[in-house]
Amino acid sequence: MKSTLLSRRDLDFLLFEWLRVEDLTKRARFAEHSPETFSDVLELCEQLATRYFAPHNKKSDNHEPSFDGSRVTVIPEVKEALDAFARADLIGMAMDYELGGAQLPVTVAQAGSAWLSAANVSTAGYLMLTTGNANLIAKFGTPEQVSTFVKPMLAGRFFGTMCLSETQAGSSLGDILTRAEPREDGSYRLFGSKMWISGGDHEMSENIVHLVLAKIAGGPPGTKGISLFIVPKYLVGDDGAVGQRNDVVLAGLNHKMGYRGITNTVLNFGEGGYLPDGEPGAVGYLVGEPHRGLAYMFHMMNEARLGVGMGAVALGYTAYLKSLQYARERPQGRPVTAKDFAAPQVPIIEHADIKRMLLAQKSYVEGAMALALYCARLVDIQHSPESDDELDKATLLLDILTPVAKSWPSQWCLEANNLAIQVHGGYGYTREYDVEQHYRDNRLNPIHEGTHGIQSLDLLGRKVTARSGTSLVALEGAVAETIAAARSAGGELVELAGQLHAVTQRLAAVTTAMFASGDIEAALANSAIYLEAFGHIVIAWMWLEQVLAADGKPGDFYDGKRQAGRYFFRYELPRTTPQLDLLESLDRTTLEMRPQWF
Amino acid sequence: MKSTLLSRRDLDFLLFEWLRVEDLTKRARFAEHSPETFSDVLELCEQLATRYFAPHNKKSDNHEPSFDGSRVTVIPEVKEALDAFARADLIGMAMDYELGGAQLPVTVAQAGSAWLSAANVSTAGYLMLTTGNANLIAKFGTPEQVSTFVKPMLAGRFFGTMCLSETQAGSSLGDILTRAEPREDGSYRLFGSKMWISGGDHEMSENIVHLVLAKIAGGPPGTKGISLFIVPKYLVGDDGAVGQRNDVVLAGLNHKMGYRGITNTVLNFGEGGYLPDGEPGAVGYLVGEPHRGLAYMFHMMNEARLGVGMGAVALGYTAYLKSLQYARERPQGRPVTAKDFAAPQVPIIEHADIKRMLLAQKSYVEGAMALALYCARLVDIQHSPESDDELDKATLLLDILTPVAKSWPSQWCLEANNLAIQVHGGYGYTREYDVEQHYRDNRLNPIHEGTHGIQSLDLLGRKVTARSGTSLVALEGAVAETIAAARSAGGELVELAGQLHAVTQRLAAVTTAMFASGDIEAALANSAIYLEAFGHIVIAWMWLEQVLAADGKPGDFYDGKRQAGRYFFRYELPRTTPQLDLLESLDRTTLEMRPQWF
Repeated sequence: MKSTLLSRRDLDFLLFEWLRVEDLTKRARFAEHSPETFSDVLELCEQLATRYFAPHNKKSDNHEPSFDGSRVTVIPEVKEALDAFARADLIGMAMDYELGGAQLPVTVAQAGSAWLSAANVSTAGYLMLTTGNANLIAKFGTPEQVSTFVKPMLAGRFFGTMCLSETQAGSSLGDILTRAEPREDGSYRLFGSKMWISGGDHEMSENIVHLVLAKIAGGPPGTKGISLFIVPKYLVGDDGAVGQRNDVVLAGLNHKMGYRGITNTVLNFGEGGYLPDGEPGAVGYLVGEPHRGLAYMFHMMNEARLGVGMGAVALGYTAYLKSLQYARERPQGRPVTAKDFAAPQVPIIEHADIKRMLLAQKSYVEGAMALALYCARLVDIQHSPESDDELDKATLLLDILTPVAKSWPSQWCLEANNLAIQVHGGYGYTREYDVEQHYRDNRLNPIHEGTHGIQSLDLLGRKVTARSGTSLVALEGAVAETIAAARSAGGELVELAGQLHAVTQRLAAVTTAMFASGDIEAALANSAIYLEAFGHIVIAWMWLEQVLAADGKPGDFYDGKRQAGRYFFRYELPRTTPQLDLLESLDRTTLEMRPQWF
Repeated sequence: MKSTLLSRRDLDFLLFEWLRVEDLTKRARFAEHSPETFSDVLELCEQLATRYFAPHNKKSDNHEPSFDGSRVTVIPEVKEALDAFARADLIGMAMDYELGGAQLPVTVAQAGSAWLSAANVSTAGYLMLTTGNANLIAKFGTPEQVSTFVKPMLAGRFFGTMCLSETQAGSSLGDILTRAEPREDGSYRLFGSKMWISGGDHEMSENIVHLVLAKIAGGPPGTKGISLFIVPKYLVGDDGAVGQRNDVVLAGLNHKMGYRGITNTVLNFGEGGYLPDGEPGAVGYLVGEPHRGLAYMFHMMNEARLGVGMGAVALGYTAYLKSLQYARERPQGRPVTAKDFAAPQVPIIEHADIKRMLLAQKSYVEGAMALALYCARLVDIQHSPESDDELDKATLLLDILTPVAKSWPSQWCLEANNLAIQVHGGYGYTREYDVEQHYRDNRLNPIHEGTHGIQSLDLLGRKVTARSGTSLVALEGAVAETIAAARSAGGELVELAGQLHAVTQRLAAVTTAMFASGDIEAALANSAIYLEAFGHIVIAWMWLEQVLAADGKPGDFYDGKRQAGRYFFRYELPRTTPQLDLLESLDRTTLEMRPQWF
């Protein structure tokens, strides 16, 4: 039976027929790999997802972690799944050989981990945080920090978290109050409280490695005075043995609409609950230089943002496949033009409106999957550049695409979940089916790792304007290459290319016009609308790429790609027209609204 | 402190300043009422909602009804709230004096019951079903049926349900299999199973009056062979005393994403579980004539559809007010043009993107509330027409507006809930706040009482074309009156009127073009898109009406109305342009998609 987690056929198309990941093996970093090892990893991830992650997805939703005041209890299936993944030696699959990793392309690793997220986004979350944490320490930590913390994480013995937000400082990190005091031995003591810490406490690993943002006295105000610390739940001896409890205390669990299987916590640091010695504070180790913590954390955060996007894609994808299966099997009603009650009912997939909802889902999830993998390949190019120019181009593209790769799937693959429920009718609203959980789970993604609003300010207020707009120019160049190739291919592709060309030109002109006024407040007022229009244009580009990769190939799979591409260009891309009109007008409706008028 | 359920100020504006419900007292049906009695009812509903319905909203979500195989347990607060409402003599507030009702306008009754839905949509659901049921029997039942069943429902002693769907027949009612066999005494025996029956079983009332669709042998196939029966849970003696158990058996409870406080059931009729005598089957009493059951049921269903729409509005409204309160109180970040970390954080309501999300919510919930109350007033006119012409016009308008009044709030007030969560950030995703529950609750509304797809076929395939399009002409006439009045008012209203005029003309032209081709399949293929565009145009009309009613009036409240109107015309109405383009092109993308291509 075909999997209803993801489509391996589609992944193979995207990875091998479109992105040609096998070409990466020509680069030194990936030279020991082959298309076969890539396939094996995908196969293994699918098996682990199916066998260990999917079966407890509902159970962990129904039995969320509990806290009795001293210990957190998580259903045992979560640890079994994580252990199985660790045993398969996959936690460090994209990391360097010298760290104990498998040095696979991130593109392949992302596709592999998408299986886990599709099967169980909460359980997979523990892994995502751990690899993100390990990557950051590997990049910015000392050799001792790497040896003490990264290697046990890759072995699945330690898990990782990221501790940024505080109750009074979520989107505004410059306002964090957690402080770090230096000690003579070079370590620090931390005092403060962190909010929304996923995986923040549990008993499933020997240790939990918290990466914590805090301020060292005397630093600059705001975001420029933030430093980054490793704060382990248990102190680790020079011999690597896990020792005394550090002063990191679980203050409580948050109870969420979805993502219920992963603990989400309030953590107190230096409250006096656990003292490793007579001195107060939680023991922390500075990563890199003081006051540069946010820049380091952004390394993890950018990775996490791509990961959130991929998680949203995976949830959208599995719900799409489940609603597709339901639509094939569920008889209901008859063709609108032939309502003969003597005839049997037809499967609902025969109805135009059901096909519309399935096509919409297909266009969202396959379009977003393409973007997620495209961005992953940019990371691979950054890891193995063949020239400075190639590195620069990949970096520029990744910079401007990251907010889109995070936010577009969070919005539209959630909309796909909404449609998956609708295809199921009343059944989709019940907990006997899976789609309502996917919808609840996916609703987190437009919030964590930077809300839509934050992503839109990042895109319009920073990425579009940075380095005099060279990121946008790089993106326009990449899109122009696709358009040129589509025009050369001829046929229907010429028409799609023309449509994309027109809207891309329009976007460029509108962007220029927005900043030409010099009224930054007005330019940024509708950044969320800009993000939406921009995102739809990027996904249209991804669809033109896919239709191009399918060009000339016969068969149902390729016909489906072509039809989904048509759907996106006919039903979705035109949404951007009124959005761009609004942006061009520098509309001040929101700015002029006064709080007392509500 | 201001209520965060609904805005009484807004209701007063809509009812008295805009719809002028006090004018209804000039009609004989409402002559004994006055603006004061209307206000008293609103006040009483707000008090009951606040005191009895709101406090257990979270609790009933956390403690959904349970079934031990023989009895259903519901938390006691539900019955306390329902009893309090019954004691206030409000169940029959819009029903005739002779039935024991208060003969209030439906407009006022709907506004009153919106308070209950905003406070607790599940508990309010028991009441909505009971009044809908009572209204149907009052209209089509015999005097004996009215006396036996309606009066105890108005007293809150009996509750009502509607039993339409079956496992194999949800949207396709012509395929129901439940059958009714006549007995010599004129009663019937029913055999079959019904699905999705809200309020289908519990122990909170002396009796439950099921209205059941079933087929009598020998009738026409499909929807034309459906009859309607009263099937009480307990048989009722000639003296009105509740007697022996009828053969209606609870097969199980459905477990839903939201609306958890109201039982949703599978009911088996005539399974042999309870036999009132030696004979098999559940005792049922035919309502009206055989085979005309669906027409009668549509009386209840149309009322239920307006009720679903109002429920969706109420959920959208309360979440909007809660997110507004949160936005006023939550400090976070600083103006984008002045990021001075030495300055205190500002309340998030100062940020343009938060104001955008609040304005969007305001425009959705106040626009939808206006439509819900406008439709209710059409019902009042139907109940008290001063001429055949007035009756005909009200009926035509109500016919074409009902699918919109059901589906538009179900889509856009759900989107308002989505934005309410987003305004709350991470907190909005937790169960410590209310908005995530409102979002889960509201997700049912696009499904029950006819899905979006069904509403769109009702609108485009039936209402728009019925009686040679006279409903659409009536609507165009009503919109034209508003446009003319706005043009006379001058100023900004002229501009809004011009925009609405243009899009209304376009809608008419596109509608004509769609059917001109004679290709009904293509015309109906995008009925859901038609419903969306049509709905946005109707709500724009509602906003022009509101801005007109606010015209010339100074103050924050009216300034807010004007700004929300501008928002809707600038940000929302333009969405219809690409939708109408698509419809005009008679796009066949969905029709041409083949199941095997997915």
